[in-house]
Amino acid sequence: LSVATNFDPPTDTSMNAPLALVTGGAGFLGSHLCERLLDLGHRVIAYDDLSTGHRSHVDHLAHRPGFRLVVHDITQPLPDDPALAEVGRVFNLACPASPSKYQLDPVQTTLTSVLGIWHLLQLAERTGARLLQTSTSEIYGNPQVHPQVESYPGHVDPVGPRACYDEGKRCAETLCDAFRRQGRADVRIARLFNSYGPRLRPGDGRVVSNFVVQALRGEPLTVYGDGSQTRSFCYVSDTIDGLLRLMESDCSGPVNIGNPDERTVGDLADTVIRMTGSGSPIVNRPLPADDPVRRRPDIGLARERLGWQPEVSLEQGLGETIGYFRRELGLDVPLRKLA
Amino acid sequence: LSVATNFDPPTDTSMNAPLALVTGGAGFLGSHLCERLLDLGHRVIAYDDLSTGHRSHVDHLAHRPGFRLVVHDITQPLPDDPALAEVGRVFNLACPASPSKYQLDPVQTTLTSVLGIWHLLQLAERTGARLLQTSTSEIYGNPQVHPQVESYPGHVDPVGPRACYDEGKRCAETLCDAFRRQGRADVRIARLFNSYGPRLRPGDGRVVSNFVVQALRGEPLTVYGDGSQTRSFCYVSDTIDGLLRLMESDCSGPVNIGNPDERTVGDLADTVIRMTGSGSPIVNRPLPADDPVRRRPDIGLARERLGWQPEVSLEQGLGETIGYFRRELGLDVPLRKLA
Repeated sequence: LSVATNFDPPTDTSMNAPLALVTGGAGFLGSHLCERLLDLGHRVIAYDDLSTGHRSHVDHLAHRPGFRLVVHDITQPLPDDPALAEVGRVFNLACPASPSKYQLDPVQTTLTSVLGIWHLLQLAERTGARLLQTSTSEIYGNPQVHPQVESYPGHVDPVGPRACYDEGKRCAETLCDAFRRQGRADVRIARLFNSYGPRLRPGDGRVVSNFVVQALRGEPLTVYGDGSQTRSFCYVSDTIDGLLRLMESDCSGPVNIGNPDERTVGDLADTVIRMTGSGSPIVNRPLPADDPVRRRPDIGLARERLGWQPEVSLEQGLGETIGYFRRELGLDVPLRKLA
Repeated sequence: LSVATNFDPPTDTSMNAPLALVTGGAGFLGSHLCERLLDLGHRVIAYDDLSTGHRSHVDHLAHRPGFRLVVHDITQPLPDDPALAEVGRVFNLACPASPSKYQLDPVQTTLTSVLGIWHLLQLAERTGARLLQTSTSEIYGNPQVHPQVESYPGHVDPVGPRACYDEGKRCAETLCDAFRRQGRADVRIARLFNSYGPRLRPGDGRVVSNFVVQALRGEPLTVYGDGSQTRSFCYVSDTIDGLLRLMESDCSGPVNIGNPDERTVGDLADTVIRMTGSGSPIVNRPLPADDPVRRRPDIGLARERLGWQPEVSLEQGLGETIGYFRRELGLDVPLRKLA
């Protein structure tokens, strides 16, 4: 897989290596980002409150020099840690991202985005660290234009069932941009579309992990609505590559990071069944309120300003993901056919 | 003027009278609300950081029993005041509302809405006080549907020049609604459209006060764009009446509070010139970015659930407002014609 970035890899992980703070560092994307940063020779402090992140995601990093996991909830003031003064890059990935998780405690979800970015922006202002906020395609809500370009203002009900996530993320963007406008912090805003890959959690409610786990277990694949709603799935290594390029670019954003290869949910289900060789049927369930009908990024800005585009096809990425879940679940479903 | 409300007026302002907290209590709307609550026999604590509010707005209330002004910025934790435990109603009106003011410090503007409501929601949760959040028609942004009904999700760029106000207010709604969903606080959300009346500040950049002051001073009336953009102007007594009715209703909202009598800005300028008898010309200036083209509330919900609608015509309200500014400015422009 192509993992080229503009990041300048330091030669060692001594005390002189650059230090990054990754919030949500034990989450799905966060753990991949920590790993990549370490591979590039950076030191990494990972914050995670372990509400949806898991120690097991970073267990394999624990022994590596320059890595440290701190259990911390970013709605609370930052720990009094002298190392924070050395941080040169802050990646904020701290927020539950799956509707079934973030709707459990909507107050906490909103505060994670808003108080979290407020605490991190103050750190960035104090130390001069550059801060990258991972925003989301959810800020476009149920979009009325297609594909979504960064100038599209979105279609989000501020008191709808997904608002706790969407409006928290929107407001976090606003705070980042306000710091930028006032010259108080050097910020980057990425709007991430659906990502997938190893370390998605079985049962966290995201469609790729749902389907793969159901197929591997021989259970029916749950398709909400008639499956004609679309999503664009970006493999995790591409997403991480986009984040690193944006961080080192001179573009403050917002920049869409996602895969423009749009698929229907029904097509995804068929592909997963085919690639796992599963005998699972598909069952249809009612579409939840506020579920977006279509979602596809326009990545013209990322192409132009970051020289970035996804390199991993859905079939390649699904192959990696299925392999991960097969090992993770300890299941022995026969693989009848490889893509 | 009709000022009927569902508020049950207590018989005295002794220690047994109900206690309301009004944040932004020295502002334009806040000072009118404090006065009305005192008239109805309530005790009132007003918080204001005096950034855009003014002591002079509540000087005439200072001697009244049961009134207290506290200089406090609600982005900071609430003062340690035992009286807060007695508060039965919290009206949050604390936020600069004029673009020329709220854009001066966008970080502080957003935090005023977001940290402010967070502090007040925690108070409401702790004490059981009912909390009314004054949201705004600005959450609709530059609306693509007309008139705006509460279910319209709006058209706001989260990194646009007005985002600090709009997204802060949107996120405050979301937090209120999240507390409601979780059964943690009893909330009401009002979406206020343009209000006007005495105690608007000369030079705060809002169109009614701009025009009236310019006309009374014989200066040119500044119309941005060609004046064809519309606004709906609600006289302050009607707005206050709507807030009080919503607070005592069983409707958590959001509810639009505004006047559906839509006027073009050009028409407003002509009316002000006519009513002041001014010889001022009209000058046109470029329309600022993000200036909404049309803005008119659908008040069907307020009519149905609150039994509320505006009672004061634009000409009546302008008459009161012109009289106020004439006294305020100490100007003696001859009144050639009364509407």
